[in-house]
Amino acid sequence: MTKKYVYFFGKGKAEGRGVMKDLLGGKGANLAEMTALGVPVPPGFTITTEACLEFMRRKGKYPPGLWEQVERNLARLEHAMGARFGDPKNPLLVSVRSGARVSMPGMMDTVLNLGLNDRTVQGLIARSGNPRFAYDSYRRFVQMFGDVVLGLRPESQEERDPFEVALEQKKREEKVTEDTDLRAGALKDLVARFKALIRQRKGVAFQEDPEEQLRLAVSAVFESWNNPRAVTYRELHRIPAEWGTAVNVQAMVFGNLGERSASGVAFTRDPATGAKRLYGEFLVNAQGEDVVAGIRTPEPLERLRERMPRAYREFTRTAARLEQHFRDMQDIEFTIQDGRLYVLQTRTGKRTGTAAVKVAVDMVRERLIDQKTALLRVDPRQVEQLLHPMIDPKAKLNRVARGLPASPGAAVGRVVFTADEAEAWAGRGEKVILVRLETSPEDIGGMHAAQGILTARGGTTSHAAVVARGMGKPCVAGSGDITVHEAQRTFEAKGQTVREGDWLTLDGTAGEVILGKVSLIQAELSGDFATLMKWADAERTIGVRTNADTPADARVTMQFRAEGIGLCRTEHMFFEGNRVEAVREMILADNAAGRRRALAKLLPMQRADFVAIFEEVRGLPVIIRLLDPPLHEFLPKTEEEMAAVAGAMGVPVEHVRDKAESLEEFNPMLGHRGCRLGIAFPEITEMQARAIFEAACRLAKQRKKVLPEIMIPLVGIGEEFRHQRAVVDRVAAEVTREAGVRVRYLVGTMIEIPRACLVADEIARDAEFFSFGTNDLTQTVYGFSRDDAGKFLAQYLDLGILPEDPFVTLDQRGIGELMQLGVQRGRRVRKDLEVGICGEHGGDPASVEFCHRIGLDYVSCSPYRVPVAKLAAAQAALRGKVRVKEMGEK
Amino acid sequence: MTKKYVYFFGKGKAEGRGVMKDLLGGKGANLAEMTALGVPVPPGFTITTEACLEFMRRKGKYPPGLWEQVERNLARLEHAMGARFGDPKNPLLVSVRSGARVSMPGMMDTVLNLGLNDRTVQGLIARSGNPRFAYDSYRRFVQMFGDVVLGLRPESQEERDPFEVALEQKKREEKVTEDTDLRAGALKDLVARFKALIRQRKGVAFQEDPEEQLRLAVSAVFESWNNPRAVTYRELHRIPAEWGTAVNVQAMVFGNLGERSASGVAFTRDPATGAKRLYGEFLVNAQGEDVVAGIRTPEPLERLRERMPRAYREFTRTAARLEQHFRDMQDIEFTIQDGRLYVLQTRTGKRTGTAAVKVAVDMVRERLIDQKTALLRVDPRQVEQLLHPMIDPKAKLNRVARGLPASPGAAVGRVVFTADEAEAWAGRGEKVILVRLETSPEDIGGMHAAQGILTARGGTTSHAAVVARGMGKPCVAGSGDITVHEAQRTFEAKGQTVREGDWLTLDGTAGEVILGKVSLIQAELSGDFATLMKWADAERTIGVRTNADTPADARVTMQFRAEGIGLCRTEHMFFEGNRVEAVREMILADNAAGRRRALAKLLPMQRADFVAIFEEVRGLPVIIRLLDPPLHEFLPKTEEEMAAVAGAMGVPVEHVRDKAESLEEFNPMLGHRGCRLGIAFPEITEMQARAIFEAACRLAKQRKKVLPEIMIPLVGIGEEFRHQRAVVDRVAAEVTREAGVRVRYLVGTMIEIPRACLVADEIARDAEFFSFGTNDLTQTVYGFSRDDAGKFLAQYLDLGILPEDPFVTLDQRGIGELMQLGVQRGRRVRKDLEVGICGEHGGDPASVEFCHRIGLDYVSCSPYRVPVAKLAAAQAALRGKVRVKEMGEK
Repeated sequence: MTKKYVYFFGKGKAEGRGVMKDLLGGKGANLAEMTALGVPVPPGFTITTEACLEFMRRKGKYPPGLWEQVERNLARLEHAMGARFGDPKNPLLVSVRSGARVSMPGMMDTVLNLGLNDRTVQGLIARSGNPRFAYDSYRRFVQMFGDVVLGLRPESQEERDPFEVALEQKKREEKVTEDTDLRAGALKDLVARFKALIRQRKGVAFQEDPEEQLRLAVSAVFESWNNPRAVTYRELHRIPAEWGTAVNVQAMVFGNLGERSASGVAFTRDPATGAKRLYGEFLVNAQGEDVVAGIRTPEPLERLRERMPRAYREFTRTAARLEQHFRDMQDIEFTIQDGRLYVLQTRTGKRTGTAAVKVAVDMVRERLIDQKTALLRVDPRQVEQLLHPMIDPKAKLNRVARGLPASPGAAVGRVVFTADEAEAWAGRGEKVILVRLETSPEDIGGMHAAQGILTARGGTTSHAAVVARGMGKPCVAGSGDITVHEAQRTFEAKGQTVREGDWLTLDGTAGEVILGKVSLIQAELSGDFATLMKWADAERTIGVRTNADTPADARVTMQFRAEGIGLCRTEHMFFEGNRVEAVREMILADNAAGRRRALAKLLPMQRADFVAIFEEVRGLPVIIRLLDPPLHEFLPKTEEEMAAVAGAMGVPVEHVRDKAESLEEFNPMLGHRGCRLGIAFPEITEMQARAIFEAACRLAKQRKKVLPEIMIPLVGIGEEFRHQRAVVDRVAAEVTREAGVRVRYLVGTMIEIPRACLVADEIARDAEFFSFGTNDLTQTVYGFSRDDAGKFLAQYLDLGILPEDPFVTLDQRGIGELMQLGVQRGRRVRKDLEVGICGEHGGDPASVEFCHRIGLDYVSCSPYRVPVAKLAAAQAALRGKVRVKEMGEK
Repeated sequence: MTKKYVYFFGKGKAEGRGVMKDLLGGKGANLAEMTALGVPVPPGFTITTEACLEFMRRKGKYPPGLWEQVERNLARLEHAMGARFGDPKNPLLVSVRSGARVSMPGMMDTVLNLGLNDRTVQGLIARSGNPRFAYDSYRRFVQMFGDVVLGLRPESQEERDPFEVALEQKKREEKVTEDTDLRAGALKDLVARFKALIRQRKGVAFQEDPEEQLRLAVSAVFESWNNPRAVTYRELHRIPAEWGTAVNVQAMVFGNLGERSASGVAFTRDPATGAKRLYGEFLVNAQGEDVVAGIRTPEPLERLRERMPRAYREFTRTAARLEQHFRDMQDIEFTIQDGRLYVLQTRTGKRTGTAAVKVAVDMVRERLIDQKTALLRVDPRQVEQLLHPMIDPKAKLNRVARGLPASPGAAVGRVVFTADEAEAWAGRGEKVILVRLETSPEDIGGMHAAQGILTARGGTTSHAAVVARGMGKPCVAGSGDITVHEAQRTFEAKGQTVREGDWLTLDGTAGEVILGKVSLIQAELSGDFATLMKWADAERTIGVRTNADTPADARVTMQFRAEGIGLCRTEHMFFEGNRVEAVREMILADNAAGRRRALAKLLPMQRADFVAIFEEVRGLPVIIRLLDPPLHEFLPKTEEEMAAVAGAMGVPVEHVRDKAESLEEFNPMLGHRGCRLGIAFPEITEMQARAIFEAACRLAKQRKKVLPEIMIPLVGIGEEFRHQRAVVDRVAAEVTREAGVRVRYLVGTMIEIPRACLVADEIARDAEFFSFGTNDLTQTVYGFSRDDAGKFLAQYLDLGILPEDPFVTLDQRGIGELMQLGVQRGRRVRKDLEVGICGEHGGDPASVEFCHRIGLDYVSCSPYRVPVAKLAAAQAALRGKVRVKEMGEK
């Protein structure tokens, strides 16, 4: 017996079920589920993902038995539809669509109207009484078949789609401007021209046999799983290549049968805001792809109520039922054929971060889901976009156009007109706005590189809009106010010409296009988002702190309700204003006495910083890292600067130059920095410790809580830590004795050198806390200088040598193992060792989950990523519980 | 019952035994052993190292019961000697000496003639009938007691020893030049002056009570374990602080009782050459420290035969018996008192590398020891000195002085006159010769920093000579031909003045001082050394290869009988002559085609290199590392060089400058190098692989054996390796197909990035060998840039933050653990994975032992270290067997 590769659905019954997404793909599983629910779905069958994988394993051959199963199910479909495949009188037409486990909009191929040929088109004419519709369907089919199955596409970036060129040519000949104005005869002629084009360009005749058409189309859909667009999409969305795609073969229904027919898409809630209302658009007398492609601007769904009230009512009921059934916001494709509603597919609707939060919180209120489910519904990466900048309300705006508010947030950048340029400019560090007539899947890379996207055509479900929302990029779509001249690299708006390189601001929330570079402000935590965060706080077991170097940063920390400061870098304090002069004086001093004199000038300034930071955080812990960068960073670089410094210090310029030269390093990353400085110049550690403890004592005297945690950087040897800790403890004792108060404090270290992980037990004998500095750890464990790796990291990602940038997402296999070792060994000698992370990974959701798993006490990230980290931490805790439960049940 | 802290020896009986070195120290155990053997040893007792440790634990207080035991044993000693401690008629005098498990010559303190005071000195006069001797002993005792017990020492580097100043003053007053010319009255007066000096400088009266003297002296010896000299010595010789020292209290015998008395030291074999003859020196009418201190130049031992024939005969017999008993060359201290021989101590004699080898091989011939013992007798670090340079016999020499050939080998350097200067100059990278009147323990650091040592005073057992031999530094001692003016920083020899900074050459083997910078040549393997190496080859189980980049290096490899080339760096081949032009042309090319054109020029040259190397090693394996350094290393640095290169290439100079700037890196060590280059520019890997396989095929066609092992550098990700291996395998297939021969080859990687150790399993799936690049591994695991770490590593060693330089001796705790992980994980997926090491640690004995222990297949080191590595490997195998045996017996 061969494997079951084909699952039938139709007439209220389905062989598959909604939970079979791995096998049937998301679309196939939903069609089965919907059919069983009684939703009016055109009947059809799904070829499984297993068949696809088997097909690829056999390098493009069907597995034995597959085609027989397809033929059997085709017969059932003919029976269900009362029509026969290839029948010249009453032909069955089918769509052939891809359908992976997760939705990959526009990434893979689809063929519609399959089954048409010169004979069956006559049957379609007979059945519909509409030759124009029949030939329009036929020419669409030939065009799609030519593109998808035969690969007849533009051969260079300059060439336009040859089918489109032929269509334009025909329209010129017929002297019409719209496709819909072409009459049946013209379309019939176009079919012949398309076939000639195929023969000429591909050297083969158009395939007239419907069964062969089907066989070729199924193969083409399987193969489209590995087309470059799909591969890029998978990489961006971390979808494994081993999933494969299912193929759905479904009876065609027609939205282009005339004015009583239509095609549309709708969301059960507003995908941009999350508001609870049906939200969508439709095109009368059109097939579905016309809506998505954005060639004609569709009408909003509300107008359907007026134009086809019965179908509208049925759709409303069906949509509500689907959302209720799936307990999540649905994205529904529908067709109305001669006034009768067909649902073509439903799936979980993509949404903005704002919408994700609102839908999740609303559904808890509606008792559709519980709080835990709500927390798992929101992608932490999307949350960041909620904190995306908005346009400063006080800014003066030169608005030049309006469009659809397709993806929220504001973006500022310089105008470019092609995806390639967007990538090239962004590669040079430029912020760009990508302006296109309309976007297509080939533009994905450029959209990724852009700050925001502006299109002249297309609706809020157009490619540009859907993709931009997925990426969290602001987008203004379908702006009829602008005229884009892609060739000249300009666009016009309100009579003004905007050229490549000009500054432009987009407000994706309001749908506005503004000339120039407008100042932006940050968003705040409130409403549903604050509710979700409260739930997250209740679930998560790992703390969230922020990295904050100044009192202003510390204030933001409190606004985002972080639980302390995980990293306060003191060197930033040294660069400000006249402080750097004292630092330079210290560096230029010839002995400890001279250094002490210079450091004495810095002491009151550092102390004031710490007083202000301690005041802001009101007793929360503050991890203060002692001076870390190599001293040459503080010295002037150019001859002029050196002369100025020498003048100000009253020393010969040679002295400054000699010092700078003597401090130069081949590999500063691995040089004289971190605790190595404090050991060479203990007076620096002394001054910093004194500033910290004097500040802490001042608060303590006012009976204010204060908890400094002093972090010795770059420790790799137990003795390094002991040396520096002794200095800190001595100063602490001196200062608190002088002040006559007691101050609780911890002394710990940053674990950022591979050796520190290995000898963590040795270090933890004396250290009270560890904080993983995963930025430096990534540099040393990989041997990648972050400043230099740009040259090859991009290529490594392109070639698949690395699955992701290890500076963005923690390398769990390598660095992660060392971290685990560090935690285990550290806690072996000190049970209550406090362990956290303060690298940039602290705000990356996958990394936060890892930190939760290996038992860190907290993550510390940049202030604006606190909500991301909190949500990721809550999800990690929830998933951990599920995992623990599963394990317990076994 | 309290612990036994004191062990008595005397009159042919001893409570201790020779194996109790841990408890009694080396000296105490030997005194016990010798006493039991019937050797004429002055009686005494040993206070154990446990007492010392307890004393330190109690912060300078004696453990309970200790002093009672001392008193009891003092009484036994009084009985044995027929004299009483503090008896004004017949006083017992004792020496109080330190004695650790291993000998630390001159490092800790000794007090002689203890028990003298104004009353007992009268008894000594009565007993000896020699008031001059008695007062000389008394003044010596007061001086030593003042120094050792009361710490009366020069207070600054400028000040001279105040006792010495008083002595000089007295000699001037008495108008004599030699100490021995001072008469009893003068010496008595000197005692009074010394006591006044103590009262004045230390504010205490001299301690007249003998028992209190003893108590204070024992404490002082205990404390001297932690004096700075001793601590430095322990660090240099890797002696744990936890060992502590024993104290030997022994009846005094006197070598300064007149012309029938003498003190001397002797070795049972020549410590410089290993020749089997009694070798030593003595001073008539002197105490032992006069011989060692080098104040008077002693007479060679042969002359004792004439001067005191009976004592000489007894000494000869005793020495032979001691060597026979201990089965090793002995270093014996003796005193002749009124013609009667006393052996004060015997210990294993320190010897040069040459002597160590000869003594070991001779003793096997004499059937005193077996081959295995002989192998364990030679310190591999000493073996390197056998390969130390010699003076080129063809060189013209300007000999200006002769001295004692105190430590063999030749050294060239610039003259300095103080230990501090030696360290300072060496710190700047200068090679120096330290010239001193005589050296003292304070000079150790400077001696370590110097290439060689020249002294004007002292014999072949003087401090300078003993320490220099231990360090393997050439030394010419006691050169009466030179007059040193330390204050003016010059010395005179044969009427010429040599100043600080002048070049000087020493021949420590011949005892010659030569003006200028003489060319040196390398030593060769032969004679006893070759024999020992043959034994080592038979015992060791780990292979020894060499690092060799050129055919000339490969020839040396064969001379030293290495088992292949463990590292052949190809970049060195790229720098030669006109090759660098082609390399630059490649770098400046804008595309792969241009690079290929330039690489095609390099191909024949690289191929020729490999042909020559393969020919040299006659079928032994050759690990060839593909291009490793960042490309900017090949580009010109200065404007002039850039202009020249641009001219030669026919490109604008801006092009060269832009390229150089674009390739500049912040941290080249962590930059675009290693396999990252080969991945970015696969054409480089292709060319190198082609050169290797074309060369290999040429030999294979001549039916010559050839085994290339191609090493991909800097791999940290499995995919990196697979990418590069695919290129190599493809080229190998192409070239061997073209040539029509088969060539066996391996492809492997250098493990030099921490992550590579962690993912070794992933890499070993495709790699056939690993070679640990411990230089880079040390850099990345510690986060130490080798080029920059000089600034702080020296301080780390000084402060004891690091016990040793991790670039010299492998860090077993950190790097070692990662290596072990790498070996385990690699072999888990590939049982026959070949694993070696090619960092400089491959020639360091302790590191070789570690490599043996973790199961590496071979070590690879610089050619001249091959004998060191072989001997270390043999010792590791022997010690491993002992360990395995011990474990088996449990």
